[in-house]
Amino acid sequence: MSIKLTILGCHSATPRANAFPSSQFLEINNRYFLIDCGEGTQRQMRKYKVGFSKINHIFISHLHGDHFFGLIGLISTFGILNREKELHIYGPKGIKQITELQLRLTSSYVKYKIVFHELSSNKSELIFEDDKVSVRTIPLDHRVYTNGYLFTEKPKPRNLHLDNIKMYDEIEICDYHNLKAGKDFMLSSGEIIPNEELTIPPPKPKSFAYCSDTKYKPDIVPIIENVDLLYHESTFLSGLEELCEKTKHSTAKQAATIAKNANVGKLILGHYSSRYSNLDEFKTEAETVFDCVELGYVGKSYDTSLPIQEEICN
Amino acid sequence: MSIKLTILGCHSATPRANAFPSSQFLEINNRYFLIDCGEGTQRQMRKYKVGFSKINHIFISHLHGDHFFGLIGLISTFGILNREKELHIYGPKGIKQITELQLRLTSSYVKYKIVFHELSSNKSELIFEDDKVSVRTIPLDHRVYTNGYLFTEKPKPRNLHLDNIKMYDEIEICDYHNLKAGKDFMLSSGEIIPNEELTIPPPKPKSFAYCSDTKYKPDIVPIIENVDLLYHESTFLSGLEELCEKTKHSTAKQAATIAKNANVGKLILGHYSSRYSNLDEFKTEAETVFDCVELGYVGKSYDTSLPIQEEICN
Repeated sequence: MSIKLTILGCHSATPRANAFPSSQFLEINNRYFLIDCGEGTQRQMRKYKVGFSKINHIFISHLHGDHFFGLIGLISTFGILNREKELHIYGPKGIKQITELQLRLTSSYVKYKIVFHELSSNKSELIFEDDKVSVRTIPLDHRVYTNGYLFTEKPKPRNLHLDNIKMYDEIEICDYHNLKAGKDFMLSSGEIIPNEELTIPPPKPKSFAYCSDTKYKPDIVPIIENVDLLYHESTFLSGLEELCEKTKHSTAKQAATIAKNANVGKLILGHYSSRYSNLDEFKTEAETVFDCVELGYVGKSYDTSLPIQEEICN
Repeated sequence: MSIKLTILGCHSATPRANAFPSSQFLEINNRYFLIDCGEGTQRQMRKYKVGFSKINHIFISHLHGDHFFGLIGLISTFGILNREKELHIYGPKGIKQITELQLRLTSSYVKYKIVFHELSSNKSELIFEDDKVSVRTIPLDHRVYTNGYLFTEKPKPRNLHLDNIKMYDEIEICDYHNLKAGKDFMLSSGEIIPNEELTIPPPKPKSFAYCSDTKYKPDIVPIIENVDLLYHESTFLSGLEELCEKTKHSTAKQAATIAKNANVGKLILGHYSSRYSNLDEFKTEAETVFDCVELGYVGKSYDTSLPIQEEICN
């Protein structure tokens, strides 16, 4: 049970030579998701070796260009590469119209099916679920309709405590399924052996929350409580709260406050305004509120199965 | 009188880590033009120091993604940068609808005016002209409606041959204007001094032709005859003529044949298919037909005022 998150782009607004707009590749419990798709994302995927064929689900937070102008190029490239698998796209209402018009006008009739899941609710809702992972929206507050996304592993079955099981001749292999599912065992004598004695809890399911773009919004805390990794935008540093209010962005301190109140494992910052040249100040500011802070930067991977010092930096 | 052309991208179809789709920045007689705008062009402009404020005219050859998916990002960025000047966009019918829909759905109401010049003619036509430069379309033959573009400097006035002028006391400064315009001078005796004796011809106006994407199309030769620089796509090498016919692209040899028949100064190749790893083969093949061939590659500049060996490579 682990999460690996690779930042393909984490800068705001205009691309620069070494600053790419938002996109992240998430590997969680053998499922693969692309989150946001700013211009140049497909090139970044090639650079950081994200297999195109792994992507079946793309989550777009909102329809500002720095979060989705790379989507049509990626969709077209999938077509050129003769993709046949369905592609599921989650994002605000309008994303279907804009994509289909572009495909029609560019005569890019892709052969694979694109399934659009257009979002319009202002409440957190379950939008994806299979036997490995679930995904919920995190309603955010930005200048246009915006959702963050919460990715959570499904709990695995409990593990068998074989040393203890062997002490009971009556427990047979055909009983293991029920034990893994958490059921107690009744001996022929009528005595009940509690499940906790016969099994070991599985590792805690991991979770990741992506929150960008948004103003400081304390009511997301209950939704993202206890996540292992939180990516929260920090467009500005403290002192520019008025600009945050106007543009509906957050400071590093506000992001850290959300992280602290939600008791997350680690906070990753990003979506830095181009006005800042020294990004270390974002980390310093956030650390005044919350201990475990990392700067998001392009090409960096965060792996929850590794100690912090072994994180991979491409 | 010179032309400087900078290649921002010259690879076909899917972007790769070090391969960018079509875009070129042309400086001609103090006018600045962007030609095609594949995904990532604005980042390439930053990388190769193309000033955003210089761009007032963008020419899109055709509506395939690798030639215009970067346009909406650039237009949005101009808005973020508070551009006020008009922006003129030349391209196939449909480019206005697609751009305006994207601006509307992304709530990117740019403050500057965008003037769309939608093209639909299959004949070469004059689409831009001022006192410095003219631009004509070059109808091409691709899978969708496509134009190349011919950029030509306006002739400068003739230069005064002051040593010869001084030999005639009757010629005064107020006569210079007529001399520069090519008029002969009549002395009070009735004798006519031919203009050629009193002036020196200005440098020959330079010209550049952009031809991408297209199958081999010999009837463009009269339109681009004698241009100083020709960029002609060469997606494939010889041997794949059948694929060229099907996909409506050209081989390096076909591009060179156009260059030879049009008597151009220099041919620049580009739009290479991703199937080729050794691009030198394109140059070798083209040189079997035409002498002065250069491989287009990302970041390279071609300056007609410099000897070939001094060309700038960023």
